[in-house]
Amino acid sequence: MKVCIIGCGAIGGLYGAHLARLDDVEVWAFDLAREHVDAINENGLRLTGLSDFTATVHARTEVSDIPECEFGIIATKTMFTRSAMESVAPIFRDGAVCSVQNGIGNEEIVAEYAPRVIQGTIFPAGHITAPGVVNHDAGGKTWIGPFATNPATMDEVEQLADALNRSGMECLAMEDARGAQWTKLIFNSASNAMGALTRLPHGVACDQDGVRKVMSVLVGEGMAVADALGITLDSDPEALIDYGREKAYYHPPSMLQDVMAERLTEVDALNGGIARLGRELGIPCPMNEACAAIIKGLEASWSLEYPEH
Amino acid sequence: MKVCIIGCGAIGGLYGAHLARLDDVEVWAFDLAREHVDAINENGLRLTGLSDFTATVHARTEVSDIPECEFGIIATKTMFTRSAMESVAPIFRDGAVCSVQNGIGNEEIVAEYAPRVIQGTIFPAGHITAPGVVNHDAGGKTWIGPFATNPATMDEVEQLADALNRSGMECLAMEDARGAQWTKLIFNSASNAMGALTRLPHGVACDQDGVRKVMSVLVGEGMAVADALGITLDSDPEALIDYGREKAYYHPPSMLQDVMAERLTEVDALNGGIARLGRELGIPCPMNEACAAIIKGLEASWSLEYPEH
Repeated sequence: MKVCIIGCGAIGGLYGAHLARLDDVEVWAFDLAREHVDAINENGLRLTGLSDFTATVHARTEVSDIPECEFGIIATKTMFTRSAMESVAPIFRDGAVCSVQNGIGNEEIVAEYAPRVIQGTIFPAGHITAPGVVNHDAGGKTWIGPFATNPATMDEVEQLADALNRSGMECLAMEDARGAQWTKLIFNSASNAMGALTRLPHGVACDQDGVRKVMSVLVGEGMAVADALGITLDSDPEALIDYGREKAYYHPPSMLQDVMAERLTEVDALNGGIARLGRELGIPCPMNEACAAIIKGLEASWSLEYPEH
Repeated sequence: MKVCIIGCGAIGGLYGAHLARLDDVEVWAFDLAREHVDAINENGLRLTGLSDFTATVHARTEVSDIPECEFGIIATKTMFTRSAMESVAPIFRDGAVCSVQNGIGNEEIVAEYAPRVIQGTIFPAGHITAPGVVNHDAGGKTWIGPFATNPATMDEVEQLADALNRSGMECLAMEDARGAQWTKLIFNSASNAMGALTRLPHGVACDQDGVRKVMSVLVGEGMAVADALGITLDSDPEALIDYGREKAYYHPPSMLQDVMAERLTEVDALNGGIARLGRELGIPCPMNEACAAIIKGLEASWSLEYPEH
């Protein structure tokens, strides 16, 4: 089968390189970073860290150079979901596209461009260390299931899960993968927002009593929205926060990394996503609203030009 | 009469220099910045900007070099109120000390060290441009009145107000100056917290719809606490916020200036003060609690040391 990775950065690279090790899977990749694409085509896509191998991936910067594929895995930052899907839609005229992106709201956009959609929630992490090279930082499971709008068939979901499992990425195929998605979403809404705003790594932020309490306020709002949606969480986000404190005390959440680098964050898919659904459902989410608004304001500050005196 | 300025920085300097122009007032100053103190003693305390004159102020870094005074004006940053009052207490064995500091909680500390206390709320602003030189940035009124604990007499309040008025600093003596204090406090809790967290100047922050809404949440909490305290505000903090947007669009609130310079902020006397009183009175102030906690976390991030890898 043919799989196209949409956005072959750290996360896309982890999934693409693993799948490319299988004899029965041909991996293509759409990415706009020419130097990275050239390195992948010349030397293969190399994983280091937890993984240590190089795989053959056909990387392209032009969609017209990519054949139609049965599966897509979209791994762009959330603010690029729409522009990426607009570009790659022709590849998936009869394909199923799976989002392994952060937060919520991505699958809705994917469903505007792909006939069948799979929602995914992932724990693996990595980062690009050089063109064509991704360091595999963290392992963990991947949960996938048919998305509500334009759902993929369970057959497709299981086919993709089977390939991932055989490739070395542990994956669970589920009829309803929303519990996993919302558990991670709610955890992220607390850990990422407090990291981005206090500029403290996760564990250090947890040890500030007042900050830890705000995390609980964010968790409470997220759980109320999940409940209103009829979603049963996989596990308690509070326990995940405390587990993260133990296991990754000095880990800077991705939104903190974005803030330090003055890059746009994914807050619209995290706190902003919870707040948006809360508004639709009539569940008050003032703290998620506030965190989303403040982080958007912070993003605006990076390009603010003061008038000459 | 003798007046001692406690903390002769920008604000203390404005008040001290003005009072020192009066024939019947002798102005002393206690300050720990030796270079600034030396410059004041050698060349006088010079005001520029809205004011343009030089006045004779007797500045000292040692309390034992200062005579007993009838009045004190404390103008330190709020986190130094206790250490400053501990030092200068001998000067005010029979004196009245007036706080012209930001926020709430200062007068309570002053009352632990001074027999009589005046609470003040001020609009003038300035900044030090060189040792011994303060630029007078903004004018505006000063409101003073007896503080609830160890209140100064109305006679004393009127005597100080009269001196300030004759010196060119417009001052209103009031039986109850809490309305002015809380109006400014609530305005500051919104403008300063949102400035510090978004890093946007006041007017630009106001133009971000979501951020402006968080300001209103902060204002609502502050007004509920003021109401529970039986305080009648001087004016509507929402109107002050909008007025500030018109008049000082690119003004960075002082907490934003502190954050950019990685200096400790006065959040404990602003959002932290409102939250503390809210807890005591049973008025929920989750947004002020959150802003105070996050800004304290941000302060902690500046001295965080990551372990070696």
